[in-house]
Amino acid sequence: MNILVLNCGSSSIKFQLFNTETREVKITGLVEKVGLAGAFLTIKDNNGKKVVFDGEINDHTQGIEYVLGIITSKKHGVIADMNEIDAVGHRVTHGGEHFKKSTLITDSVREDIKKLFDLAPLHNPANMMGISAIDTLLPEVPQVAVFDTAFHQTMPAKAYMYAIPYQLYKKYGIRRYGFHGTSHQYVAERACEVLGWDITTKKIITCHLGGGASVTAIENGKSVDTSMGMTPTEGMIMGTRAGDVDLGVLTYIMIQEGIDANAANSLINKRSGMLGVSGISSDMRDILEGMKNGNERAQLAYDMYCQRIAKYVGSYTAVMKGVDLILFTGGIGENAFYVRKDVSDHFPYLGVELNDELNATTFGTETEISTPDSKVKVMVLPTNEEFMIARDTEEIVNAL
Amino acid sequence: MNILVLNCGSSSIKFQLFNTETREVKITGLVEKVGLAGAFLTIKDNNGKKVVFDGEINDHTQGIEYVLGIITSKKHGVIADMNEIDAVGHRVTHGGEHFKKSTLITDSVREDIKKLFDLAPLHNPANMMGISAIDTLLPEVPQVAVFDTAFHQTMPAKAYMYAIPYQLYKKYGIRRYGFHGTSHQYVAERACEVLGWDITTKKIITCHLGGGASVTAIENGKSVDTSMGMTPTEGMIMGTRAGDVDLGVLTYIMIQEGIDANAANSLINKRSGMLGVSGISSDMRDILEGMKNGNERAQLAYDMYCQRIAKYVGSYTAVMKGVDLILFTGGIGENAFYVRKDVSDHFPYLGVELNDELNATTFGTETEISTPDSKVKVMVLPTNEEFMIARDTEEIVNAL
Repeated sequence: MNILVLNCGSSSIKFQLFNTETREVKITGLVEKVGLAGAFLTIKDNNGKKVVFDGEINDHTQGIEYVLGIITSKKHGVIADMNEIDAVGHRVTHGGEHFKKSTLITDSVREDIKKLFDLAPLHNPANMMGISAIDTLLPEVPQVAVFDTAFHQTMPAKAYMYAIPYQLYKKYGIRRYGFHGTSHQYVAERACEVLGWDITTKKIITCHLGGGASVTAIENGKSVDTSMGMTPTEGMIMGTRAGDVDLGVLTYIMIQEGIDANAANSLINKRSGMLGVSGISSDMRDILEGMKNGNERAQLAYDMYCQRIAKYVGSYTAVMKGVDLILFTGGIGENAFYVRKDVSDHFPYLGVELNDELNATTFGTETEISTPDSKVKVMVLPTNEEFMIARDTEEIVNAL
Repeated sequence: MNILVLNCGSSSIKFQLFNTETREVKITGLVEKVGLAGAFLTIKDNNGKKVVFDGEINDHTQGIEYVLGIITSKKHGVIADMNEIDAVGHRVTHGGEHFKKSTLITDSVREDIKKLFDLAPLHNPANMMGISAIDTLLPEVPQVAVFDTAFHQTMPAKAYMYAIPYQLYKKYGIRRYGFHGTSHQYVAERACEVLGWDITTKKIITCHLGGGASVTAIENGKSVDTSMGMTPTEGMIMGTRAGDVDLGVLTYIMIQEGIDANAANSLINKRSGMLGVSGISSDMRDILEGMKNGNERAQLAYDMYCQRIAKYVGSYTAVMKGVDLILFTGGIGENAFYVRKDVSDHFPYLGVELNDELNATTFGTETEISTPDSKVKVMVLPTNEEFMIARDTEEIVNAL
């Protein structure tokens, strides 16, 4: 089965064509600046060759039409015509409490996704534009929505409720939802596959560390707590997001600086995190460079970053009353071996022992970086959300 | 030395007369509704006898004058006249970054405390009213300020900085300060005294659980992290305070409900916490009663409460790379044995073993409630902030 996997942002379209029989990514690419001046499309074929196309792309429908043209083209194409696309899988950010698993997109599902616009105003409308584009361009092809929040719907109420007036939960659905669910689920399941473990008997902590970052406690295969909240702002220190901060700090800043809630949102999501503390960059590679040059604020940002992860790993160990496996994934988790080292060093009392040499030479490959004697295993596992989206899409379409 | 210990709120004055030679509290009492209709004063002598006095009390000076009259009176007095008061020790809430320890109150100290009004608008002005009252009533008596934040000034920057733009720290002093410092310090030092331990070699987690609540990581006698932040809102779920919540939740509520930062402050500090979730009460005893009657939201609030404490204990164990002793203090920590039990049950992997029978019969006494085999000791330790204030005051006055 050939599945087109789409991940639409407000001005971007990430796509992959995935063959489920061969587990092969036939083509992958990204449309940027959709609806803006200077839009362009980049593809990478399965030999890693990169090609860039310029062109006016006014909306998501035009963007996806462009994509379909290229993947069926003589020169760069990987399929003969559009009939070879058997299904489309969409990454949808917020599934609220309604969507506890991936689902075939029907009219009522479209309505339900729209109802969640309020909870994810930056993401769900963009995801919906991708769905509408396929409605127009490939009206006969079945579409599946895979939600970033669905995996976390197994959290118990004591993990997902906030200690604010209960009626705010009833009225607006204010609670912890968590994100990156597809990634956390993938790496936990894949690690158990690699280790020959039965996931339903294990305690796993997954650290998804990229531009956005979250940590999840997975007990017996189910998410029991996660660091992102109702919004992606909570938890880890991220590239430009603040993560955990005293609520009283936010109201204090708003009063002192005379800014409203929208400006406050921008402050905590776009000007905070590693960028806000270091003052130099949101990118971990720049932070590391700064540290090497003796930049104290880069060092501070780095120390805060690792400490925050360690605190969550410690906290989730308490939640699950133990831990068998700590996983690192995402751009930083897969590559920044020094972060993995500095986090792991917090856990001598759990019997965590890293193979430092192996850790320092592991970049984005499935690798057990703890020593054979380590009481808790530590692994690097490249995430593959597209595979999960394709897998769920195939399952649902096959069951039709 | 007779030391008058004062803890002034905006409409209350808590007082104790403490004799440092005998370590005896000669009298203790509370003035309530200062400046309001129906003001009254309650005293409890050292036999536990309670007496209530009514009277018009327009301000803190009148209130303290009333107190001084009673403690020197023929009928209820414990000293012959005011000359027997050798010093006054004040609890001052916020010492900012300036006050790293207790200090003699001079004109420049008065100015520095005033500079901190912005950071603790509800507390520091009230503390200052107590100081001014003594300036008027006992102008010759030395006064000492003991800060609730001072003990936490040893935290490293990675623990006290927030991941928001760095200039907000420079401009307003926005950082974690922590509170209940006198209590955390007292119970940790006292526990080591009781156990015959050298505090400078130990890792201790202190849980101060009262109407307000905070947890502190104390490594080698120094606070290295604490759950309250720039304000007392952060961290634990409290009677009416929310504790940790996604910042994005707060901006979302403000936008949806159309409320400003002051109303938001009131929401997260006065209508949240155990009261907000349970809908019945901010008092743990009522929550327990509700649980017994099958109230699901009382049960939820309770489960969230214990889970939050356990998460912080787990987190601070990671921060210190281990833990030797977990301490419970404050009204709930000293009495709610079920909370101690439910928190301790999270730590089989640390080798925590509770003596359940002893725990269930311990109310406000210094008691080791872990079993002799437990790898981490667990203790109940009644807090005594007044003793600490008297001790610091004596030391400073003796050194004059």
